[in-house]
Amino acid sequence: MTVADQAMDWQKILASIEAAVSPHIGSGKVANYIPALACVDPRKFGIAVALPDGSMQILGDADESFSVQSISKVFTLALTLQRVGEDLWEAVGREPSGSSFNSIVQLEAEAGIPRNPLINAGAIATTDRLVASYGGGQAGAHEAMEDLLITARRLAQDENIAIDYEVAESESRSGSRNRALAHFMASFGNMKNPVEDSLSAYFRHCSIAISCRQLARAALFLAFDGCDPVTGEQVVSKERCQRILAILMMSGHYDNSGEFAYRIGLPGKSGVGGGILVVAPEHGTIAVWSPGLNQAGTSMVGSIALEELVQQTGWSVFV
Amino acid sequence: MTVADQAMDWQKILASIEAAVSPHIGSGKVANYIPALACVDPRKFGIAVALPDGSMQILGDADESFSVQSISKVFTLALTLQRVGEDLWEAVGREPSGSSFNSIVQLEAEAGIPRNPLINAGAIATTDRLVASYGGGQAGAHEAMEDLLITARRLAQDENIAIDYEVAESESRSGSRNRALAHFMASFGNMKNPVEDSLSAYFRHCSIAISCRQLARAALFLAFDGCDPVTGEQVVSKERCQRILAILMMSGHYDNSGEFAYRIGLPGKSGVGGGILVVAPEHGTIAVWSPGLNQAGTSMVGSIALEELVQQTGWSVFV
Amino acid sequence: MTVADQAMDWQKILASIEAAVSPHIGSGKVANYIPALACVDPRKFGIAVALPDGSMQILGDADESFSVQSISKVFTLALTLQRVGEDLWEAVGREPSGSSFNSIVQLEAEAGIPRNPLINAGAIATTDRLVASYGGGQAGAHEAMEDLLITARRLAQDENIAIDYEVAESESRSGSRNRALAHFMASFGNMKNPVEDSLSAYFRHCSIAISCRQLARAALFLAFDGCDPVTGEQVVSKERCQRILAILMMSGHYDNSGEFAYRIGLPGKSGVGGGILVVAPEHGTIAVWSPGLNQAGTSMVGSIALEELVQQTGWSVFV
Amino acid sequence: MTVADQAMDWQKILASIEAAVSPHIGSGKVANYIPALACVDPRKFGIAVALPDGSMQILGDADESFSVQSISKVFTLALTLQRVGEDLWEAVGREPSGSSFNSIVQLEAEAGIPRNPLINAGAIATTDRLVASYGGGQAGAHEAMEDLLITARRLAQDENIAIDYEVAESESRSGSRNRALAHFMASFGNMKNPVEDSLSAYFRHCSIAISCRQLARAALFLAFDGCDPVTGEQVVSKERCQRILAILMMSGHYDNSGEFAYRIGLPGKSGVGGGILVVAPEHGTIAVWSPGLNQAGTSMVGSIALEELVQQTGWSVFV
Repeated sequence: MTVADQAMDWQKILASIEAAVSPHIGSGKVANYIPALACVDPRKFGIAVALPDGSMQILGDADESFSVQSISKVFTLALTLQRVGEDLWEAVGREPSGSSFNSIVQLEAEAGIPRNPLINAGAIATTDRLVASYGGGQAGAHEAMEDLLITARRLAQDENIAIDYEVAESESRSGSRNRALAHFMASFGNMKNPVEDSLSAYFRHCSIAISCRQLARAALFLAFDGCDPVTGEQVVSKERCQRILAILMMSGHYDNSGEFAYRIGLPGKSGVGGGILVVAPEHGTIAVWSPGLNQAGTSMVGSIALEELVQQTGWSVFV
Repeated sequence: MTVADQAMDWQKILASIEAAVSPHIGSGKVANYIPALACVDPRKFGIAVALPDGSMQILGDADESFSVQSISKVFTLALTLQRVGEDLWEAVGREPSGSSFNSIVQLEAEAGIPRNPLINAGAIATTDRLVASYGGGQAGAHEAMEDLLITARRLAQDENIAIDYEVAESESRSGSRNRALAHFMASFGNMKNPVEDSLSAYFRHCSIAISCRQLARAALFLAFDGCDPVTGEQVVSKERCQRILAILMMSGHYDNSGEFAYRIGLPGKSGVGGGILVVAPEHGTIAVWSPGLNQAGTSMVGSIALEELVQQTGWSVFV
Repeated sequence: MTVADQAMDWQKILASIEAAVSPHIGSGKVANYIPALACVDPRKFGIAVALPDGSMQILGDADESFSVQSISKVFTLALTLQRVGEDLWEAVGREPSGSSFNSIVQLEAEAGIPRNPLINAGAIATTDRLVASYGGGQAGAHEAMEDLLITARRLAQDENIAIDYEVAESESRSGSRNRALAHFMASFGNMKNPVEDSLSAYFRHCSIAISCRQLARAALFLAFDGCDPVTGEQVVSKERCQRILAILMMSGHYDNSGEFAYRIGLPGKSGVGGGILVVAPEHGTIAVWSPGLNQAGTSMVGSIALEELVQQTGWSVFV
Repeated sequence: MTVADQAMDWQKILASIEAAVSPHIGSGKVANYIPALACVDPRKFGIAVALPDGSMQILGDADESFSVQSISKVFTLALTLQRVGEDLWEAVGREPSGSSFNSIVQLEAEAGIPRNPLINAGAIATTDRLVASYGGGQAGAHEAMEDLLITARRLAQDENIAIDYEVAESESRSGSRNRALAHFMASFGNMKNPVEDSLSAYFRHCSIAISCRQLARAALFLAFDGCDPVTGEQVVSKERCQRILAILMMSGHYDNSGEFAYRIGLPGKSGVGGGILVVAPEHGTIAVWSPGLNQAGTSMVGSIALEELVQQTGWSVFV
């Protein structure tokens, strides 16, 4: 924790965040492609800031579970890199896509290699490699997801993180676009497992139910060169940590990534469940949740909260 | 200057950079679309690190002038924002393009609004707004370029920065693609001046001859919240500075921006003259030059030098 | 049969076709994505011309069965139009695609509506509507294919037309791209049946084994305003017949359709099995087969044969 | 003239056309990008049918001049093929584009070679080759246009066909998109003359003022294997004539070509001035004019008139 961070008046910061978001509570459009997401109260708002001394600053519904959705891609990416190493980059690129989260156009022009591991196609390819590293097939998919959950729980120091199988089932039922992406990659030879096996893992990790507190805590190692500052566990190497953050910065919000960098200036990942995870290197992690989304699928109120937090803390990487 | 920076052994750092680049000197492909660039000795290499105490660490051909090319877009962007403010964002976006520097495809789908101010189309639109802010037409183009030069010289504290009119003339003669981009934007009403007037300014600022030392010095304000740490001049506001850096990070190297962030982790801008400008917030600026380019138009040896420098200094924004 | 046609010296015409193709026999690239196609002898060549008096002019391997592949789309289109009428055009367009047979790009830009019923996506959507008209599901798929076969046999007056189930199985196993197209359309709501049900019908009709003689005979009604000139059966209405021919002319050969119209000037449809079916309105039908393909997937030797035939007969619609 | 044609009751046919169009007179959207087009009375309607015995069937405003616009591309194509032969096909393709008339996307993917000579880019490239064949530059452009006019007048047997220089001037002033296309092709080396020289010729031939009667008469050779049936002049060879018609059929109406073939079944070319030229091989030519356009830039009332005419005459090439 930097000297400046130690002197921070969190009560004041949280109050200014509350003031900034309160006129906007309920704005944006709640994801409605599956019932489990559509039924969430649009007025929910929670934020949790995890600090390296193990303390946590929270506001609002920070202990309520929400659907992690695409934010799980961060943990899937980290775990996959740990298991398959740089070989992952044969399956997926590292450039921002400039497109919507589920675009298929780029795949056709670029031989079935998705631009990055954070768009849907890239996360499916990453999950496919993860599943393959556990022996592949349905068994591999199951084992991979078990390990991902165990890892998330250990990092969050909380056993109450779980897959919401009802959501996973809904995702699968309405998963035509993701199925198209997977089969399209398979047509270029860029899937190692039967499409449905890898997709079943993908739908499951997107359906994890987690709270802001749990999410911020689980990701804390990313703010400290890959090392959990509380437990001392070196989760990933320093170099790998930096590189994961670079990918989050460039591609964490699909075709809204530039805007996010411009306004907030921190690497992060948003999910259509309304959650956003943000990493402030050397400072801490922030998880925010509010279900109403902007056009690019990022939480509207969550973005406002983060913009205020960055203004108050000066944690932008560009300062 | 941070405590850690004060203790840095620059002699050792420069030696390790020299060792890293020496096996690669001469590699890459020198830009050859105009004679003035094609004739540059591919074995040139220079680097300059500007520090907040006014000192400068240099190596190799750091005092030799080269063609700034697209790096001028950084200064054009800063100056245009100072003159027209947020209105610029009606003419140009802030998202990475995911495409090559001179792609026209995205323009058709997005009504003539270029993705960001650092791809060619976006820099032409930005230059067009800058020219308009000086009254427009040939006179506006002339005055805008005069002011840009005066600004660059003042910031670099060096009167020997100049436009190479022979290069500008060559650029114009081989400028069919840029002309196409400009007329295409004009067809959507996104050019305020006659195309040739704005292009003449564009070709001129891309043809500035500058050395690594001059370039690093001129950009130093970008590393310190918009304030030149030596003269104390607040060149741009703190907020604007952060935002310019965000744009550099996301889009500074066309379809190689993700790779650059992944390997180097600092906001920057490359030019086909072989130069790269990089900003390390709170630490300093680095300008490197070596003419051989990779496929995306970024200096190959320059990238290697920067990767080594970042490894030695720990200046990545993701640490 | 026109007066000029009655006077035709078919022996001479067939001899000139033989002379034209013989230097090229074996050229082109045999489709190799499934073993059943890859193993066909590249030197095969057959042609059959069906005339309105019930006579047939044949040359070479005109009685040998080959895999009909995309040529089946013609019969599927005709049968589907008979069953669902103009409603088909809610699922699929009527414009040439300008793209390769299995491109997915256009689907994303145009809300999951394929350009025409002859590219893969369009033929899948058409098959899906056909299956739905038989009650849908696996049973509907089965019944639709039974009816298609019965129709083909009746029109060809030959009971020996059959689905090659081994080929159908291979198509399904290597069908990732078609699966991607189908799921992609499903994600836009443009599939009425479970994807695998409609695909199973699609793979089956593409796997019909048929000879040139059978194919030319079965399609004869298309040359005479929808009425089989031998049996007098009005298979489709005159207006529908014209419109089917218009679609064949515009889109029968993917991104080679313009070239085919330019060289041959007749509506037709090619398949990667090496067959081409061509309709000469008021004159007759021609089926040609030779396995080697050009880059666009059209039989090379088959095209040469047709070009010669058209030159000898003057049957181009543009004369 | 065929036996059936001789027996045609033109009075009845014209009456049925009049009945078909009258409820729609004035519908559609008049082109408004230049004042000269925008000011035309939307209720104008004329049609002229040129027959091989030199007779002409006319209705409505068939003797009033309108702006030929893209229909001039037919004559430019014919004249260019006469002068440069098959070399033209190095500059331009023969496939339908599947895109709007002024799309630039395809050019980027296909190295600056337009899909066909009837979209704007392709017509500009064709005009460029024509200008080059007259020595190039401004003089070549002038001479080429003189020759085109002389040819049109000779074919129409009417000296009153002229370029409307006011329209040409307007076209040039609002020609940003065409300028972009030309410079874009130049960037790929696919322009032989300075862009403005070729464009000046292009804008001029698009600005020819012509009546339905003149247009139908001038194109009559295209319906009779390249030979004017009245004068006996062989304007182009039989083979070239067929091929020009194939190109008209495939690409004469941009992304509406498939629909036109489906509804009307004849090769033709439409212009945003509201004219449509249609060729009925062995029968005659039809020119129709009515200013209101559909979304693809084809005359709405003109299309209705042609659909009725084809239904009455049975002149579709697919019968």
